[in-house]
Amino acid sequence: MTVTNEATLPNGLSIDDARAEAARAYELDRAHVFHSWSAQAEITPMTITAAQGSYIWDGEGRRLLDFSCQLVNTNIGHQHPRVVAAIQAQAAKLCTVAPQHANDARSEAARLIAERTPGELNKVFFTNGGADAVEHAVRMARLHTGKYKVLSRYRSYHGGTETAINLTGDPRRWPNDHGNAGVVHFFGPFLYRSQFHATTEAEESARALAHLEDIVRMEGPSTIAAILLESIPGTAGIMVPPPGYLAGVRDICDRYGIIMIADEVMAGFGRSGKWFSIDHFNVVPDLLTFAKGVNSGYVPLGGVAIGPAIAETFAHRPYPGGLTYSGHPLATAAAVATINAMTDEDIVGNAARIGAEVLGPGLAELAERHPSVGEVRGTGVFWAIELVADQQTREPLAPYGASSAAMNAVVASCKENGLLPFANFNRIHAVPPCTVTADEAREGLEILDQALAVADSHL
Amino acid sequence: MTVTNEATLPNGLSIDDARAEAARAYELDRAHVFHSWSAQAEITPMTITAAQGSYIWDGEGRRLLDFSCQLVNTNIGHQHPRVVAAIQAQAAKLCTVAPQHANDARSEAARLIAERTPGELNKVFFTNGGADAVEHAVRMARLHTGKYKVLSRYRSYHGGTETAINLTGDPRRWPNDHGNAGVVHFFGPFLYRSQFHATTEAEESARALAHLEDIVRMEGPSTIAAILLESIPGTAGIMVPPPGYLAGVRDICDRYGIIMIADEVMAGFGRSGKWFSIDHFNVVPDLLTFAKGVNSGYVPLGGVAIGPAIAETFAHRPYPGGLTYSGHPLATAAAVATINAMTDEDIVGNAARIGAEVLGPGLAELAERHPSVGEVRGTGVFWAIELVADQQTREPLAPYGASSAAMNAVVASCKENGLLPFANFNRIHAVPPCTVTADEAREGLEILDQALAVADSHL
Repeated sequence: MTVTNEATLPNGLSIDDARAEAARAYELDRAHVFHSWSAQAEITPMTITAAQGSYIWDGEGRRLLDFSCQLVNTNIGHQHPRVVAAIQAQAAKLCTVAPQHANDARSEAARLIAERTPGELNKVFFTNGGADAVEHAVRMARLHTGKYKVLSRYRSYHGGTETAINLTGDPRRWPNDHGNAGVVHFFGPFLYRSQFHATTEAEESARALAHLEDIVRMEGPSTIAAILLESIPGTAGIMVPPPGYLAGVRDICDRYGIIMIADEVMAGFGRSGKWFSIDHFNVVPDLLTFAKGVNSGYVPLGGVAIGPAIAETFAHRPYPGGLTYSGHPLATAAAVATINAMTDEDIVGNAARIGAEVLGPGLAELAERHPSVGEVRGTGVFWAIELVADQQTREPLAPYGASSAAMNAVVASCKENGLLPFANFNRIHAVPPCTVTADEAREGLEILDQALAVADSHL
Repeated sequence: MTVTNEATLPNGLSIDDARAEAARAYELDRAHVFHSWSAQAEITPMTITAAQGSYIWDGEGRRLLDFSCQLVNTNIGHQHPRVVAAIQAQAAKLCTVAPQHANDARSEAARLIAERTPGELNKVFFTNGGADAVEHAVRMARLHTGKYKVLSRYRSYHGGTETAINLTGDPRRWPNDHGNAGVVHFFGPFLYRSQFHATTEAEESARALAHLEDIVRMEGPSTIAAILLESIPGTAGIMVPPPGYLAGVRDICDRYGIIMIADEVMAGFGRSGKWFSIDHFNVVPDLLTFAKGVNSGYVPLGGVAIGPAIAETFAHRPYPGGLTYSGHPLATAAAVATINAMTDEDIVGNAARIGAEVLGPGLAELAERHPSVGEVRGTGVFWAIELVADQQTREPLAPYGASSAAMNAVVASCKENGLLPFANFNRIHAVPPCTVTADEAREGLEILDQALAVADSHL
């Protein structure tokens, strides 16, 4: 057991107070809180009472290494002092203004984001999160092109609102899919489970591009407003695209008059070891959506970075979209502090180094030793462990869209040994903060090692 | 001129520093910020540098009485010290947790909301704002009933995301309406511009209900999941429904197996002089959406309050929707502080008294004196002044969906004299905070008096 019991939590609560608070929070939660993506009577949420850096504390006062970053959003770690201080200062100065006015926090956040996005994505439309960022990006593409259909990948996640969930390529779409959202799904490159009978990365990339172009030709380029894809698909499995793939998508978009939208909600702001995942490939999309890492989710914030062509479309024609909290001062002040701290402390560089020097080699070593591991893949602090019942057949350890006793045991082992993992179907994702230290990353690998032994025992 | 120049703004900025900050904010805004609902090259946003109570300060350091509450969200006034302190304390304690975990701030906010919503709306699903609250309420209704179509009013606003904007009954829907959202619009009661050739409130109510029931019968009750309506339509004109109307809608929903969704995003949390506008009518909806006033928009937050039937549907069947920031600790801590301060300081009662004793009589008196006023209507701190070119024909002073030179002059007069109004088409809304004092309300009425003289001069 690596679980630590301490007398006082980092936010000053005593363990006894934390436990009492957690008991009441749990009771009220079960009485009054309706949770995302859940059968409400069948869940037993863990209460979180404190967090600091790479760790959280549960309702018993147990410390867990947060290898989930909650929903892969606390890229700067928990309770970074500069971001906390910036939120406190902005709260004292000015919490909220309407979107039609101008405000210094919003302006500075837009400048810092524009400075970091690739190419000339120099205008920023702020939203509350990733889902509405995707909604608005798609709207911009539809109105700019005068076309309606949008292509997106199977094995993807784009958000929970109506358009965003229909663009999503995972089973959460199914109950929300009425066939009328104007979305067509295609397969992206995923060599380990190739749709294209490929055996090399180069072959997978070429065949996936040919497949996408065929879909465009069969659907009709004159009907397609946009191709939307995560630069590196996140929840769906952290499939880093092979060299040439995203450049090929860019080329297809250019040749057929289609807007390219890069979804960097999970993949952006340092997660992959660069500011944006698309920076690994020297490709510039027309629109780029972000959320999560932009301020580590300390205050709800998302947005769309907009290139010059679409900005020009809405220079003299009103953009028919908006929201009360667009460019919210508290949220954008948190973004300013987050981006400045990430820059000053080279937090993106740290994510790259941890990935190259600790997590990448460490996970590869685990893969060699554990027969339950089919593949590990990733970059920066953005890694997936694909668990299989059989390395030869690659049969997943849980079916697509479901869990399994084996996977539940793996997750339970992680938690018992002090690590909070991110699990999806047959995968465990290792997605610690970009600020994670080498020692913390090694601690996580040790706990994963034990959990994989549990997985092995289920084969 | 009632404009005050002061040496220091309430947040401690000197006027010179505020001006320098505003100049830079404006420059960066024009370079990098993409604004809601706007032709980007044709706007000149006002910069807001400080706010306190019922006032904001612009980029020149000029104080304006905020009769807009920004977008009708700062029900508790600007920078309420208890809410600011709660945000600062929660920032120090714990900014963010994922929605699948439990947290004390979220639990307590859900309890306080459930305690105040009518009937047994005892479960709360938290969102980031009003649009996604509406998206999720509609999804719940669709999945609960197994039906798809939703009826909503013309002259309404429900949000900016795809389903929400298609439910909206104002021209902002048009560019986003592809005919595939499963929405049918109906006319609600609006005696001043009656669709039903009615001459009394009772007649308007009865005929509007007969119209709605005919729409239900013609569309087919077996196809209709929900009727969605603002308890008091807000941006569309603050048309307080006549007695019996909402009870009649409830009855139609019950008789035809349709879910009733009350949108209280703008109308809720004290705006009308009660916690929820629907409380004026003793009607309990199946779902109630909220945002804005729940924490005055200090941190982005919205949600859906859920009655027992729909909660039961998702007790053992997963609800297929969610979002990273659902029940965000910082946002819900702000809600806890807001609701407790509103309770302790009887802020809802203040809104009712100001409406009954100052704004209502004062606006009625303005209506008598100004030929440009067709009607004033409202309750609490939720009032519309309907401006007309001709009191006999009721021709609006600006066409539906547009502005006019006359309306622009009215708005300009308000601002010159130190009042920030909320304007929509041919209407000025007087929507100060629920905390507004009688003196501040009278100050606003005086400035509106001068602005209406400008309107009169355009007849």
